[in-house]
Amino acid sequence: MLASHQIATPTISYFEHNEERRVPEMIERLSAGAQIALVTDAGTPAISDPGFRLVRAALDAGIRVVAVPGASAAIAALSVSGLPTDRFTFEGFLPARDGSRRRALDALCAEARTMVFYEAARRLADTLAAMIAAFGDSRPAAVVREISKTYEETVRGTLLDLERRFRATPALGEITIIVAGASTGAAASDGALITVEVPNAIEALREAGLSLKQASAVVAKLSGRGRREVYQDVLKSREDDDSADE
Amino acid sequence: MLASHQIATPTISYFEHNEERRVPEMIERLSAGAQIALVTDAGTPAISDPGFRLVRAALDAGIRVVAVPGASAAIAALSVSGLPTDRFTFEGFLPARDGSRRRALDALCAEARTMVFYEAARRLADTLAAMIAAFGDSRPAAVVREISKTYEETVRGTLLDLERRFRATPALGEITIIVAGASTGAAASDGALITVEVPNAIEALREAGLSLKQASAVVAKLSGRGRREVYQDVLKSREDDDSADE
Repeated sequence: MLASHQIATPTISYFEHNEERRVPEMIERLSAGAQIALVTDAGTPAISDPGFRLVRAALDAGIRVVAVPGASAAIAALSVSGLPTDRFTFEGFLPARDGSRRRALDALCAEARTMVFYEAARRLADTLAAMIAAFGDSRPAAVVREISKTYEETVRGTLLDLERRFRATPALGEITIIVAGASTGAAASDGALITVEVPNAIEALREAGLSLKQASAVVAKLSGRGRREVYQDVLKSREDDDSADE
Repeated sequence: MLASHQIATPTISYFEHNEERRVPEMIERLSAGAQIALVTDAGTPAISDPGFRLVRAALDAGIRVVAVPGASAAIAALSVSGLPTDRFTFEGFLPARDGSRRRALDALCAEARTMVFYEAARRLADTLAAMIAAFGDSRPAAVVREISKTYEETVRGTLLDLERRFRATPALGEITIIVAGASTGAAASDGALITVEVPNAIEALREAGLSLKQASAVVAKLSGRGRREVYQDVLKSREDDDSADE
């Protein structure tokens, strides 16, 4: 692209796999007075794209960092999704493995804000199926693909509509999935959710008279995690605290 | 701006206070075959900006809606903030009134994702003070102002650093506040938060052997609400269910 615009500025690669090596090189050159532009072939650097480490290192070194505002598929897709835009969460790519993806989605089942996900086309139908398992089949959602390109397409419907559609006709291109938050219909009852750190939950349950095992079982049930896993975490966090307060 | 580029396309106003009246007019014209571009003087339409109602109405009427991806202060500011960008929440403008603002911030005190807020310059120091009350004074944050303009400035530090700085030297211009999520230091334990609906929490506690009153007390403690309030809610939701399952 630079060549087609006769831009002769030297370029070097910067991506996830050489980021750790590149950052100190770049900071050295910046400290010596160089100016460096971090560009990406699509979207905004540092948003589901390498760049965060370089920005942080530059700021830590006292180097001025300025944004050149540009496109982001998350914002563009959200703006045409027809789903509430006043508050939203950006989740990026879900874990690729089934179990991790399920846990990530389960942790979002009570999220009240509109959620924005990126997904690879080949995983779209499976991810929509996993979303149905976590959020229910009637949750409103939109799939936006190839945004800003010739074959841009926005498909709206329930998660079930979308899963059927993209199971039958697999999509190509880059995908943004927008999912309405939980209980958009019942948005009035915003006091009906609690978010709490696990150690605080355990402590409150112990104070109410439950044993550590019982408390772990309750927390495991509420969080969708294994009872043994929660119990081990609790034991571990107690050990960490030992030197301080026992 | 259109005039300076000799663009003669007719324009009409569309803003928060005439949105309800404009939407049906626009849908009528679109249905008759017109093409309409929704533009804004800054940022992306429908993101902390009017547009959502028109997009939704157009989609409901079967009209194709296409995004022209452009700038968003939220994304641009986040990309230069040096704070984690892999997941974030966009909160827009907080309520202007003290009590509502405090409640909105308290509800975010356990939010683990990086948070993005918009704020008016004249309220910046007070909002930072309210954030200190909700999140603690050592939470890492960044204030980005006048993004993409001549006097663009990014100031990073703890909430306390930022509050002192902007209390002493009030900022001008449009402000984006980026606040790190809770326990960024302990980011490894991403299973350490649970979000749960109150009725489900009560049910799990009752199954663990607590009385309804004890369960309400635990939930009240964890959610920061009054015990009586939670108890009344629970009784009420039971009454609502009565016809169905008792």
